[in-house]
Amino acid sequence: MNRTIKRWTLSQRPDATPTTDCFELVDFELPPLEANQVRIKTHYFSVDPGMRGRLSGDSYAAALPLGAVIESAGIGEIIETSSERFVVGDMVMGGLGWSQGVVQIDRGLQKLDPALFDDKVRITASIGVMGVPGLTAWFGLQDLGRPKQGETLLVSSAAGPVGATAGQIGKSLGLKVVGIAGGTEKCAYVDSLGFDAVIDYKAQKTQSQLIQAIQGACPDGVDIYFDNVGADMLDAAISAMRPHGRIVVSGQIAEYNRPDPHGIRNVTNFITHRLNMAGLVVYDYAKQFPEAQAAIAGLIRRDQLIYSEDISNGIDGAPEAFIGLFSGQNHGRRLIRV
Amino acid sequence: MNRTIKRWTLSQRPDATPTTDCFELVDFELPPLEANQVRIKTHYFSVDPGMRGRLSGDSYAAALPLGAVIESAGIGEIIETSSERFVVGDMVMGGLGWSQGVVQIDRGLQKLDPALFDDKVRITASIGVMGVPGLTAWFGLQDLGRPKQGETLLVSSAAGPVGATAGQIGKSLGLKVVGIAGGTEKCAYVDSLGFDAVIDYKAQKTQSQLIQAIQGACPDGVDIYFDNVGADMLDAAISAMRPHGRIVVSGQIAEYNRPDPHGIRNVTNFITHRLNMAGLVVYDYAKQFPEAQAAIAGLIRRDQLIYSEDISNGIDGAPEAFIGLFSGQNHGRRLIRV
Repeated sequence: MNRTIKRWTLSQRPDATPTTDCFELVDFELPPLEANQVRIKTHYFSVDPGMRGRLSGDSYAAALPLGAVIESAGIGEIIETSSERFVVGDMVMGGLGWSQGVVQIDRGLQKLDPALFDDKVRITASIGVMGVPGLTAWFGLQDLGRPKQGETLLVSSAAGPVGATAGQIGKSLGLKVVGIAGGTEKCAYVDSLGFDAVIDYKAQKTQSQLIQAIQGACPDGVDIYFDNVGADMLDAAISAMRPHGRIVVSGQIAEYNRPDPHGIRNVTNFITHRLNMAGLVVYDYAKQFPEAQAAIAGLIRRDQLIYSEDISNGIDGAPEAFIGLFSGQNHGRRLIRV
Repeated sequence: MNRTIKRWTLSQRPDATPTTDCFELVDFELPPLEANQVRIKTHYFSVDPGMRGRLSGDSYAAALPLGAVIESAGIGEIIETSSERFVVGDMVMGGLGWSQGVVQIDRGLQKLDPALFDDKVRITASIGVMGVPGLTAWFGLQDLGRPKQGETLLVSSAAGPVGATAGQIGKSLGLKVVGIAGGTEKCAYVDSLGFDAVIDYKAQKTQSQLIQAIQGACPDGVDIYFDNVGADMLDAAISAMRPHGRIVVSGQIAEYNRPDPHGIRNVTNFITHRLNMAGLVVYDYAKQFPEAQAAIAGLIRRDQLIYSEDISNGIDGAPEAFIGLFSGQNHGRRLIRV
């Protein structure tokens, strides 16, 4: 039984946008199983912008140690087991890393029921629209956004896996939904998801043009802003918020590669407009995941939620796929098929 | 009956810190009463930093028209009435302006029950610790701060009328309370109010010293930050917040005199620390005012709440008293005895 696998490790910390020389593909021999362990063959793993902060060891997130495997969600198959929880052939979802395989204890893995998946709700959805990105959209919008029918929801990175899901959940709840995305191709994709309007931020040359575009698309103002970007886009949205508006801080991709944070300017609006801004870490809702996943699967089966996956073949290309996230190449969830 | 009174009007809009030539003291003849009106002789009025935004006509607040009387809370005596609601001699509280008197309709005035007031709960408290500043502290802390016994509350402008009240309400709820104020005199005042610790921000030469001072005074982190200042002080507090911390945006005095807003940088902390930031306008809670005022009076009578008033004699000095707010001269609520 060949126990040697390839995996990507962190070889140096990025200063700004990560480069390929921050990563090293190494051969690793998986150890023999101890008690209550499993050996997993990875089928898919994800590349996520949220990993960026942990690569550089910013003070606000636990730094990934140099030499450690890059972490990510993955889907794999149990190929050896000393655990009563799993049998060979079980499909599981968990933090498998940028790796062809792993030996680990039998905890922290979710067994995937093959009966749940089909051509519509694909198994890859378990680390996408039914995994961290989809659950972030679900709990961010439902718990922090506190949506009421007829309100206006504005979503940034609306072509991304979180934003696209948040907007469609918003439509299913009877909201007016406006997306922001970059470029005609992404805007066409957002439009195809049933958003009421789409703003191409790349077509807005100045901050005041961006504000005007938001105000034009949201003439009654914005009740909920679901933010995946931060910085100037967050500031523009704040200036278009209605009284008692809610801002969900889901992601801040415009901040992650800056040496110094940019932040926002319009804080006095929080008083004059009674705004509320809150951030979330989706794992805080872990006990409610199964319920939310069932609800998301229901939306997919009723054609109320379209999801898109951007799947590359082969572990070798993972760093390029990750780096491309920061130049806005992708739409949909970016996955590697190992 | 002499109907000519003096009152302060807005003669030009300030660019940065207001100057005395923004204000003009004019003689005005009060009109005869129409139906359901009252003539009020003003005894006291307040000068409030929150008026600043309306003087310059910033986009986020309704601008006061040029030539209009400067608005403020006041306490006065009914000296003529065509209303069934009031008799001559009644004391009332309302928006009387920087003026010796006013003729107005009999709405928007709260009759003050003399039995409620004595040497401890003075009538001036009705536009101070039991008026807008005190109610802002009460509802900001209770509704947006969501305090739980044993938590740490950090308050900026802790020697000011809102901050001093918020901190003492916090103590009455069993919180650990840390204040921030400027200079040894103000810090000694905050200490005398029973705060657990006081930080002199003027003794901190850099932003990182300010952050260290906050972290030193709040070794377990800050659960609630009650902010009256904004900008760099808000950023420093954000960096010391515990997970799930709440930020109450009560005032932003560091922003009001800037040509461009400064804002905050640490927005990614909202995700990593699950922070919540919310602003309030106290009038949204108007229906709950009597209940809160009774609770505040109870704290005063039980010696759990000390309040300080900074009373100047004579309407002539109102602009200087107002301008002095922005150089941090005052502690306690600043009032004019007319």
